[in-house]
Amino acid sequence: MDLYSGYINKLIEELAALPGIGSKSAQRLAFHLISLPEGKVSRLANAMVSAKQNVRYCRECFTLTDSDICPICADTRRDHGTIMVVENARDLAAYEKTGKYKGVYHVLHGAISPMLGIGPHDIKLKELMERLSGTQEIAEVIIATNSSLEGETTAMYISKLIKPTKIRVTRIASGVPVGGDLEYIDEVTLLRALEGRVEL
Amino acid sequence: MDLYSGYINKLIEELAALPGIGSKSAQRLAFHLISLPEGKVSRLANAMVSAKQNVRYCRECFTLTDSDICPICADTRRDHGTIMVVENARDLAAYEKTGKYKGVYHVLHGAISPMLGIGPHDIKLKELMERLSGTQEIAEVIIATNSSLEGETTAMYISKLIKPTKIRVTRIASGVPVGGDLEYIDEVTLLRALEGRVEL
Repeated sequence: MDLYSGYINKLIEELAALPGIGSKSAQRLAFHLISLPEGKVSRLANAMVSAKQNVRYCRECFTLTDSDICPICADTRRDHGTIMVVENARDLAAYEKTGKYKGVYHVLHGAISPMLGIGPHDIKLKELMERLSGTQEIAEVIIATNSSLEGETTAMYISKLIKPTKIRVTRIASGVPVGGDLEYIDEVTLLRALEGRVEL
Repeated sequence: MDLYSGYINKLIEELAALPGIGSKSAQRLAFHLISLPEGKVSRLANAMVSAKQNVRYCRECFTLTDSDICPICADTRRDHGTIMVVENARDLAAYEKTGKYKGVYHVLHGAISPMLGIGPHDIKLKELMERLSGTQEIAEVIIATNSSLEGETTAMYISKLIKPTKIRVTRIASGVPVGGDLEYIDEVTLLRALEGRVEL
């Protein structure tokens, strides 16, 4: 369909390639962008390009940062002996928002998924093991991968790798979310919550 | 929260300013963009900037195009004596997808909304009246503004403006959508469908 000009079609196509943006939203976004003042459009375009060009992995924990080492790893007030392993930088952000976790992180950038052909060598696992055998004394590794098949597989794999080092390995609890109504919660979660029950 | 680097924060902020993109989606998109190869990011950035720079209004119907006159207005096989008035270029696209409408369009770029302070002078209404009094003989104006308060107000306003010119003015039908289940349709639509009933 050659309804729109080539420029609009090109823009819609590029936008629709982004995750979570279907062809309708892409069309809406494209028209919105065209309606904006030119300065705003260039600001967004520049923000995209400069984020891509300037953001790299933290040398310690592999989260995304624009310096050699991220603000969390650089913070000497944090407990560098406790490492929370997460799948991606968004999960790190989620835990940081709680404001309660005072350790540091390790970002895997993925999870083991035989289905998608992602093996242990495709995520930052070697880098985690190098950290554990480094000069810094590590007391505990908290595995906070997602509670999905891939996340659980990754958690099992990591715990087996770490066990021989005698470092304590823990996994975040899984169960009914706070405020969750039992009626709407899936059976697997309900069973997990039952298995993980604690004394009152 | 200074979790992310300045570049990431800036990108998230710019993305979250787009319509339909909340802070969570903006975060997800930002991390996705950073994970893309640099070439893809620049392609999207360029598509945005060049669409903005090259797209303008069609001289005839005011839809968005990159030439002086849009492909629809330039098409001599279409009926230039029938003008469908729509609120925006997306609505034009929706009707074009039916493949059945053979007339031309007029894009208002908005609808009259006293609530939002949008008056008749803020949309391409003067331009419509100029077209109607131009050299081209117009047989019918079909008002296809949305079936919202603003769309209906605009339709009423336009019909009153055109009436004295003796040009035929029609309004697209409103009623139960095809495939719609009466149970889930609001009362106003049900009443409208009843009022607009046709002989079988």
